[in-house]
Amino acid sequence: VTTAVLGVGLSRFGRHPDRDLCALAWEALSRALEDAGPGPVDAVYVGTVLGPSGVGPRVARACGLAGIPVLTVETACASGTTALFEAHEAVRLGRYRRVVALGLEQMSTAFAGAIHPEESDPEGRAGLALPALYALAASRYQDTGAVTAEQLAAVAVKNRANGLLSGAPYGGSYSRGEILGSRMIADPLTLLQCCPTADGAAAAVVGPWDGTPEQVPIRGIASGTGGAWDHRSAHVWGFDLVRRVSRRAYAAAGLDDVADLDVAEVHDAFTIGEIVTLEALGLAEEGEGGKLAETGETALGGKVPVNPSGGLLARGHPLGATGLAQVAEIVNQLRGRCGARQVEGARLGLVETMGGGVSGIDGNACVVAVLGS
Amino acid sequence: VTTAVLGVGLSRFGRHPDRDLCALAWEALSRALEDAGPGPVDAVYVGTVLGPSGVGPRVARACGLAGIPVLTVETACASGTTALFEAHEAVRLGRYRRVVALGLEQMSTAFAGAIHPEESDPEGRAGLALPALYALAASRYQDTGAVTAEQLAAVAVKNRANGLLSGAPYGGSYSRGEILGSRMIADPLTLLQCCPTADGAAAAVVGPWDGTPEQVPIRGIASGTGGAWDHRSAHVWGFDLVRRVSRRAYAAAGLDDVADLDVAEVHDAFTIGEIVTLEALGLAEEGEGGKLAETGETALGGKVPVNPSGGLLARGHPLGATGLAQVAEIVNQLRGRCGARQVEGARLGLVETMGGGVSGIDGNACVVAVLGS
Repeated sequence: VTTAVLGVGLSRFGRHPDRDLCALAWEALSRALEDAGPGPVDAVYVGTVLGPSGVGPRVARACGLAGIPVLTVETACASGTTALFEAHEAVRLGRYRRVVALGLEQMSTAFAGAIHPEESDPEGRAGLALPALYALAASRYQDTGAVTAEQLAAVAVKNRANGLLSGAPYGGSYSRGEILGSRMIADPLTLLQCCPTADGAAAAVVGPWDGTPEQVPIRGIASGTGGAWDHRSAHVWGFDLVRRVSRRAYAAAGLDDVADLDVAEVHDAFTIGEIVTLEALGLAEEGEGGKLAETGETALGGKVPVNPSGGLLARGHPLGATGLAQVAEIVNQLRGRCGARQVEGARLGLVETMGGGVSGIDGNACVVAVLGS
Repeated sequence: VTTAVLGVGLSRFGRHPDRDLCALAWEALSRALEDAGPGPVDAVYVGTVLGPSGVGPRVARACGLAGIPVLTVETACASGTTALFEAHEAVRLGRYRRVVALGLEQMSTAFAGAIHPEESDPEGRAGLALPALYALAASRYQDTGAVTAEQLAAVAVKNRANGLLSGAPYGGSYSRGEILGSRMIADPLTLLQCCPTADGAAAAVVGPWDGTPEQVPIRGIASGTGGAWDHRSAHVWGFDLVRRVSRRAYAAAGLDDVADLDVAEVHDAFTIGEIVTLEALGLAEEGEGGKLAETGETALGGKVPVNPSGGLLARGHPLGATGLAQVAEIVNQLRGRCGARQVEGARLGLVETMGGGVSGIDGNACVVAVLGS
C-alpha cells in the first residue's frame, strides 16, 4: 500500500501556559481531520517528550477518539515525525487503515529558559546542553573556514523573515547585525540563532493513497537512532546520522538526485543545524552549506527554498509538535496552499527532524521523509 | 507469521538508586538475548514511563544495539506489555524479524513514597491518586458484599508468599492479620496490600515461531486504551477496559473457554486489582473474585494459579518493567523452568497489565496476552 498524508492541522504556536494541552491538541487534530475529510480513525500515534504519562489516551479521548489504540512514542525532538513514521508503517503494512499522527508539547508550564539537563545526563552535567553541542559544531565550522558568522546569521535572517509570511510567532524582519548583536547564548550562537521553546500541537492524518489531488503521498520515509556522535568521525554532531537516514529515505523514495527536491523543512534548532543538515542531506557539498542562505539559494525564490515556514527559529520548538508542523508545511506547499510563501510548482518536498535527547547525545533519533509524487 | 517469545530476562528488582539505568537494562537484556540464542536484532521497543527523553536509544546503545530503530513507547503501567505488543505486531506483519521488547524504570532516584499526581491532573489534584482510585473500588466491593477485608488480605498473603519462592524482593510470609494490621494507605487498602515502587528492567525477544520447544508462541494479544471509567458504568474502575481487551485477546487466540488457562499473571498493583481483574477476565463470575484467593483456587496447586511470581505486590512495580516481568514469568512457567513455584503441566498462560496513568484516569491502557500452544 502506498501511503499518503490526507490532512494536516496546526494549533497556534507560541507561549500558551493558560491553555490546556488537550485544547492545543484539539486545535491541531480537528483541523487535520477536517482537512482529511470524513472517515473513521483506527489508531493514534502521539509524539511528545514532556507530556505526562498517559497523555496520549487522555488527549485522544478529549478529542473524541476514545476506545481505539493510542500509542505515545518518544524519540526526543524527532517524536512528531516518528509518530508519522509509525502511522505510515501501520498503514503500509495493513495494520490500520486511517491513522492520526499527533505531536504536542506544552513547555511554558514546565520551565523557563533553556531545557535543563537531566541529573542522570553526563553530557548535560558537563555543560553539553543542546545549545553548547550545536555551538561546538559552529565553532569547528568557523575554525575550518566552512562557515562565517555572517553565514550563520543569514540562516536566521531568512527563517525569521519566512516566519513573518507564515504568521509564525517568532518571525521577524532582522538584519544580520541584529542577529549577531543579540545576546550570546553559546559562542558563536546568539539568542536569535536559537529556536525558542514553545507550546503547540500539530497533526497529520495518514491513509492509503488513492490519487486524490489533495492527498500527498509519502514517497519514502526512514528513521534511525543512536550513535550520532563519535569522536572518531570526521564530522560534527548529527551529520553522520542525518546522512545515513536520508540515504535510506532516498532509496525508499526512489530518489536518484536530490536536485529533484523542490522544497525542504529541516531541523534548524540552531542556525548551524540547518547548515550541517543541508550538507548531510546532500543538498550542499561538505563545507559549502554555509553559502546557501547567504547567496539566497535556500530563500523563497531560490533554487531550493529551505524552511519556508520559518522553521523552528520562527515557529518555536514545542518538541513533539515540531516534526508534524514541518510535515504540515511541506504538505501544504505541495498542494499549492501556502500563499505569500508558496514555492511555485513544488512537487517534491523533504522533511528532516533531528532528536537530540535531553538525556544526552547518545539519545539520538532522526527521521527523513520525501513527500510528493 | 505466528510470533513467539524466544527469550526473556530480568534484572534484579527492588531499590537500586546507586545503579545506572543502563546497567539495569543490560542485566535484563543480556539475559534475554542469551536465552533467545544467537541472531541479529532488528529493532528495539522500549517501554518506560519516567525514563528521561532519549533513554531508549541511549540504553540500547549502552547494550551494544546501536544504529537499529529504537522506539520508546509509553502507556503508563502497561508500557512494558505495550512494547511486547508492538514487537509482536512488527514481527507478525514482517516489518522486522527479531525484535527486543525492553521495559525499565528507576523510581528510587525520582521520588520517595507514593507517585505524586501531575499538576495538570484534575483527578490527582482531587485526591484520586492511584491508591485512592483502587480504594474506591475496594470500598464499593465491600459495600455490596462482593469482597471482605479477609479476602483482600488473602490476595496479599498469597502473592507475598509466592514471592518468597521466586526470590522477589518484597515477598514474605505474612498472616492475614499482619496484612490488615499494616499501616492504612487508602481505606481499606493497607500498606502490604499496595505494590511498592521499585527499580528494575525486564526484556523479551520476539521472533517468528519455528516450533522449537523453548519458544513460547504468542497465541493472541490485544491492546486497548481510553474510556476506562465512566460513572454510568455498572462496574468499578478498570473492569470494562480489561473485559473488552481480554475478549479481543481471546478471539485472537481462538480461546473458547478461559478454563483452558493454566496460569496467569495479572496486574495486582493493589489487592482489589487482582480480584476485579479476575472477574473482568472471566476467570471468576462478577462478585465472586474475592473468594478465589481465600479458597486457594488461585494459589499454587489451585485450579488456576494467579501471580505465581508474587506479582507486583512481591516484585515491586517499576512501571515500564512490570509487564515484561509478567511475560517472563509466564514464558518460564510454560517452559517448566519455575522450580518450587512451577505450575505443573502449564501449557497456556495469560498476562494482563493495566495502565492507570499518572496523569489521570483517562490515560488508561490495557494489554492482555495469551501465551502458549
